[in-house]
Amino acid sequence: MSGTTTGADEPVRLGFTGVGKRGEDLLTACTKMDDVEVPAICDLQEWRLEETTETATDAGWPAPSRYEDHVTMLEAEDLDAVVIATSWRTHIPMAIEAMERGVTPGMDVGPAQSVRECWDLVRTAERTGEHCMLLENACFGDGRLAALEMVREGLFGELVHAQCGYIHDIRPEIHGDRSTRMPERDGMGYRTLHFLHRNADVYPTHGIGPKAKYMNVNRGNRFLKLTATSSKSRGQARFAEMNRPDDAPTQDQHWALGDIVTSVIECANGESIIVNHDCSSPRPRSSRDVLQGTNGLWEPSHGGVHFEDRSPHHEWEDFDDYREEYKHPLWETYEDQGVQVGQHGGTDYLTMRAFVSSVVQGVRPPVDVYDAAAWMAITPLSENSIAKGGAPVTFPDFTNGEWLVEKPIYGLTGDDVREGLLDFGTMV
Amino acid sequence: MSGTTTGADEPVRLGFTGVGKRGEDLLTACTKMDDVEVPAICDLQEWRLEETTETATDAGWPAPSRYEDHVTMLEAEDLDAVVIATSWRTHIPMAIEAMERGVTPGMDVGPAQSVRECWDLVRTAERTGEHCMLLENACFGDGRLAALEMVREGLFGELVHAQCGYIHDIRPEIHGDRSTRMPERDGMGYRTLHFLHRNADVYPTHGIGPKAKYMNVNRGNRFLKLTATSSKSRGQARFAEMNRPDDAPTQDQHWALGDIVTSVIECANGESIIVNHDCSSPRPRSSRDVLQGTNGLWEPSHGGVHFEDRSPHHEWEDFDDYREEYKHPLWETYEDQGVQVGQHGGTDYLTMRAFVSSVVQGVRPPVDVYDAAAWMAITPLSENSIAKGGAPVTFPDFTNGEWLVEKPIYGLTGDDVREGLLDFGTMV
Repeated sequence: MSGTTTGADEPVRLGFTGVGKRGEDLLTACTKMDDVEVPAICDLQEWRLEETTETATDAGWPAPSRYEDHVTMLEAEDLDAVVIATSWRTHIPMAIEAMERGVTPGMDVGPAQSVRECWDLVRTAERTGEHCMLLENACFGDGRLAALEMVREGLFGELVHAQCGYIHDIRPEIHGDRSTRMPERDGMGYRTLHFLHRNADVYPTHGIGPKAKYMNVNRGNRFLKLTATSSKSRGQARFAEMNRPDDAPTQDQHWALGDIVTSVIECANGESIIVNHDCSSPRPRSSRDVLQGTNGLWEPSHGGVHFEDRSPHHEWEDFDDYREEYKHPLWETYEDQGVQVGQHGGTDYLTMRAFVSSVVQGVRPPVDVYDAAAWMAITPLSENSIAKGGAPVTFPDFTNGEWLVEKPIYGLTGDDVREGLLDFGTMV
Repeated sequence: MSGTTTGADEPVRLGFTGVGKRGEDLLTACTKMDDVEVPAICDLQEWRLEETTETATDAGWPAPSRYEDHVTMLEAEDLDAVVIATSWRTHIPMAIEAMERGVTPGMDVGPAQSVRECWDLVRTAERTGEHCMLLENACFGDGRLAALEMVREGLFGELVHAQCGYIHDIRPEIHGDRSTRMPERDGMGYRTLHFLHRNADVYPTHGIGPKAKYMNVNRGNRFLKLTATSSKSRGQARFAEMNRPDDAPTQDQHWALGDIVTSVIECANGESIIVNHDCSSPRPRSSRDVLQGTNGLWEPSHGGVHFEDRSPHHEWEDFDDYREEYKHPLWETYEDQGVQVGQHGGTDYLTMRAFVSSVVQGVRPPVDVYDAAAWMAITPLSENSIAKGGAPVTFPDFTNGEWLVEKPIYGLTGDDVREGLLDFGTMV
């Protein structure tokens, strides 16, 4: 199927590997699309396959074939694309297995295990001619897409700086509250293992994804280097002590991950970006978004925006007014048809829509293999920097210089929508 | 006068070197104190000496002697202490000149020129036995002092991370709007020269001061290292182009200072601190305060605090309630007597009060020479790190190991007040 369109009349044949909570959410979003069918699903746990089959048949779809093994499914089924929503360590290997067999992968977010793995992903895409999308739903929120339109319209002037992060108290999950998650080792889920053994920003893409789009990373700009600093590690051990029985698997462990990891990225065009990871502290959730340009900024925690040429002197304006004025064309259509709020404020539908429309048209997805490699590489690069006492580490140029000539098109811009590259689809 | 008390009945004899806007503010704060007299003032500009004399005599004080030269004043007058509120480059040299002559200096804030200069300051204090205070008014705000009480009371648990900064659009001043400021070179004021020639956090102490106090820096903890990253430099050149005539001195310059400088400090006890400097971007002012401990955090931009053991799950609480409950004893007295709001929300009075009371008692001031050296060193250290592509640079241990045994007393704690070490004084 690689590099070809599926044809206007044929639905996209989409497999799902990993139908836990996240896979189920993404599949549910697809049941609203009239040009998608799901002939096969794959999971290690039978009960999940059963539940997801019910979700499919409830939506009026035929029951999908069920598989326990990803490669077996890829080889037995005639799939155009596959959504991979498995454990963090398996996203890239499974995406590679899909591309090797002419199936376009869409990977759920997570950290790269190593820089080598990012290279493997890129090289496989280049050798096979396949596309690969990172399903980063944070890029598809109405606020962040409105901010993107404002960037493109020049409201910020030239971008200079950004801040972002994944700041989310998920301690109960790390200590086993998500009982549907299969233990990966010693009774502990995959996320827990990363917290135990890696001192790195282990979940960078929600934060960095939208900022990379604003700054045209891989399309006229690129990440040049980062330095990372970790605070001490206290939150997880404290949580176990306070909330778990003495014999719980997360009790009395050495937690490698510092409570707060701070990475500072420098871009080729001179912008700096602070990225925070904090999943170990008691606090309300935040993404700590800041986007500063020469003419003004967006800082939602302060409730707003300020633009020198239109805001009252040194005063905040309400972002909601701008959100309305600069609504992204995708969201205009979405709101007209009725937002499928579900999980993540309706972004799952748009994420899957971007994936499906890139498969239908046989074009690069708006979050492509180079984006996936650069964003996910923040994990091993921050790990390396911390291990070297905060020394700067350079980003590989995964595009091999193509970023110098690649235009910032098909990167979630309104033009992508207006030119039909990013189509909203018809909702059923 | 060194290391001796002035005696209960004798007023503190306080000189002022530099009576521009800042010196004038600090002198005005002293006119409310019944145990201070100002026998001499010093400035290069005659009209400033005249205006300040008027301020003094309006307050019922005798007209102070006037000097053009700091050392001449120190040698001619019998001063206990001297306030130095001159240009950035002269604070430390003048403080050293004062200590050499047995006069206790209080320096207004500013950057160190070099790490060597910080050592010179510390070594002079140690050799002469004199104290030296950094007059960091940001340590004396009611909110920040309430947060300090909350830290001491254990509300945060163990501190893990902080964020802070000096984020203040002062472009007009950099381009000459403060006409009272004497040009230091080529028609440009001292601050402008730093923006032109140094890529560093050139104004770190407002941000880092309170955080250093929360974290017991130099009293059981210390700054270990930092990495710094600079964004590109755009704001000052753009401002000149938009707002200044073609022949203005700040036109067509190379501005070394990046618009946003981000330093990340790691402390010996494992805390990390992000410090931002941004005086070049159009935006409302912010200090971007964050203080995160194992039990919760303070993040005023989100409007509040959250403590795991007392706040509703994952919800913010209004800081104002806590500000009242944990009001610092200094502020309790201050509010009873009537806050002298004036400049900087009433903090100038408390800053000067802390300085005067340390001179009266002959004890280390709450922001002492080691604090001054460590905080001001952030400027040359961030400069070095940026010059080395973000490489980590280590902080000198200015205390030579004394931080291991020095207790966090006389560091703005409520106990300092209760024990009479930090006395509020009697307002006239």
